[in-house]
Amino acid sequence: MRVRNKPWAAEKLAESTRYVVMEPAEWKGKWEERFGNDHPIHVEIGSGKGQFIVGMAKMHPEINYIGIERQTSVAVMALDKIVEADLPNVQLLNTDGENVADFFADGEVDRVYLNFSDPWPKSKHDKRRLTHANFLKNYEQILVAGGEIHFKTDNQGLFEYSLASFSQYGMTLLEVWLDLHNSDFEGNVMTEYEEKFSSRGSRIYRVEAAFPKKA
Amino acid sequence: MRVRNKPWAAEKLAESTRYVVMEPAEWKGKWEERFGNDHPIHVEIGSGKGQFIVGMAKMHPEINYIGIERQTSVAVMALDKIVEADLPNVQLLNTDGENVADFFADGEVDRVYLNFSDPWPKSKHDKRRLTHANFLKNYEQILVAGGEIHFKTDNQGLFEYSLASFSQYGMTLLEVWLDLHNSDFEGNVMTEYEEKFSSRGSRIYRVEAAFPKKA
Repeated sequence: MRVRNKPWAAEKLAESTRYVVMEPAEWKGKWEERFGNDHPIHVEIGSGKGQFIVGMAKMHPEINYIGIERQTSVAVMALDKIVEADLPNVQLLNTDGENVADFFADGEVDRVYLNFSDPWPKSKHDKRRLTHANFLKNYEQILVAGGEIHFKTDNQGLFEYSLASFSQYGMTLLEVWLDLHNSDFEGNVMTEYEEKFSSRGSRIYRVEAAFPKKA
Repeated sequence: MRVRNKPWAAEKLAESTRYVVMEPAEWKGKWEERFGNDHPIHVEIGSGKGQFIVGMAKMHPEINYIGIERQTSVAVMALDKIVEADLPNVQLLNTDGENVADFFADGEVDRVYLNFSDPWPKSKHDKRRLTHANFLKNYEQILVAGGEIHFKTDNQGLFEYSLASFSQYGMTLLEVWLDLHNSDFEGNVMTEYEEKFSSRGSRIYRVEAAFPKKA
């Protein structure tokens, strides 16, 4: 997403050592230590302004959440929400979600969330989509065997692509929603983007997909 | 679909020996003989009034098509279209599509089409949906290894269910269309139902899914 550049944002993030991890590779394999417990770890790649991850962390205190957001000027907006909520089970990484295998040991993560990822609509850019096989391979590496991706988008083309991509990678589609907001799904936490675009009439698509159980 | 009962329909079908096969079990493993060539065989389960199968047969003379329609009063409407088109590559079965394994030898069929199947919306009726695992097992048996199902519907619930059902059975989704009529898909042949409901604004969903290549 496009937001105003904030030259002070990087410094603010760096100072917020309680919630922001500036050197996530140092915690690889040691996130239990960081959180002080062995609760399951759910990672949101592209956590944007943070409404989803903060909402989820409030709703599920038994889960540890880690949001990854590359854009510093956006991550700092998530930080404000995290500070305000003051939750022990959220951490924020201001870095590139493509490199998750650098930050997490094999099998250290229990679930990956992808919400409203960049659709990269041109087919020549398909390798940049976060549901491309190259990225799925990284997610599979850090996830427990049988680990799940929960993916939401309002972009029809990206959703069509992603269903096929998950399936062709060998993942199993556990459940599909073609109109989430008019379904009986309970406990949906909306992202800022989702709130805005669904109120304008966009359909929200959702899928839960699992990697093979074999290790 | 509901149509007026036609007491004369069964007799008309029985007399149309050129296009209608009344005892399909007798041709099990011998459809090449019936067609007089070894072209691939595509089966439509629930062929309704026949517009799809006749349209496909016209467009693809190198494929042999077999339509299966249980309702006699509906099948006779398909017969009229088949007679009018006078094509050598269409045959009609007035019987229950659930029993395909009685009519085809293992691997005798190259593709299965399901178009606008009954959605059976109540979850307690899910076993009646033609994309339920119990039916997939039958289709897999008659299909070549890696054989495909091509499925269209305007029913959102049935499509959501079917994507998950295919995937959980071990099939691979090759491609998904969430709005077929506003896509770049070429060569779509509409069913009568599809024409009617898409003109009223219904979205048409489509998926191509393949069984595992292992025999």
